Amino acid sequence: MPSQEQMKAALQAYVDGFAKGDADSVIALFAEDAIVEDPVGTPEKRGGEVAEFYRNAVAGGAKLVLEGPIRGSHGSSAAMPFTVEMPGMKISVIDVFTFDEAGKVTSMRAYWGPDEITQG
Amino acid sequence: MPSQEQMKAALQAYVDGFAKGDADSVIALFAEDAIVEDPVGTPEKRGGEVAEFYRNAVAGGAKLVLEGPIRGSHGSSAAMPFTVEMPGMKISVIDVFTFDEAGKVTSMRAYWGPDEITQG
Repeated sequence: MPSQEQMKAALQAYVDGFAKGDADSVIALFAEDAIVEDPVGTPEKRGGEVAEFYRNAVAGGAKLVLEGPIRGSHGSSAAMPFTVEMPGMKISVIDVFTFDEAGKVTSMRAYWGPDEITQG
Repeated sequence: MPSQEQMKAALQAYVDGFAKGDADSVIALFAEDAIVEDPVGTPEKRGGEVAEFYRNAVAGGAKLVLEGPIRGSHGSSAAMPFTVEMPGMKISVIDVFTFDEAGKVTSMRAYWGPDEITQG
């Protein structure tokens, strides 16, 4: 099981990757067979779709502003509350991550609904 | 699928139930076969264990202070970031809920690790 520190460092690196506009550093956090469900309730992305999703998000200028501390768990999950700020739009989001033994992300699920989008 | 408004109202009622010291109103939000994993990584509670868990938490004086907006999803899930304040202790938590067609909670998973506990 990855340590709390390892998982929290990965979530912080995820935030930092967006801040630096470095999609590759975000994609590198994921295991090869990882799935991304963003937002929850839409089809899961896998493999090349995950990389494409993050390249597009970073290219679109998305920045993640943490809204409180990154949470670990008593297992191999971690979660964080944040606002995604994009040109002309903000979305309130909670991301939940699971990890494999090696500390790579095996899933990311993003909780936000249509009403979490605000303009400006 | 429950509406975003329905799910968010349930999460707010959950917070309010703790505020009022009303465990029954919290327990009434759950479907009969609901599971609670609090914290994530520990065994799931079911049935009478769920009711007992909430009776103990409310009796212990736990209050939930929201740390940002309640999030919906594009499915039947919702999530919220908060601090649990108990006598002598605070814990930073993210709760994720799933719902059935009737708008009852089918699962609650609480993301917090040992390091999310602070004294005072």
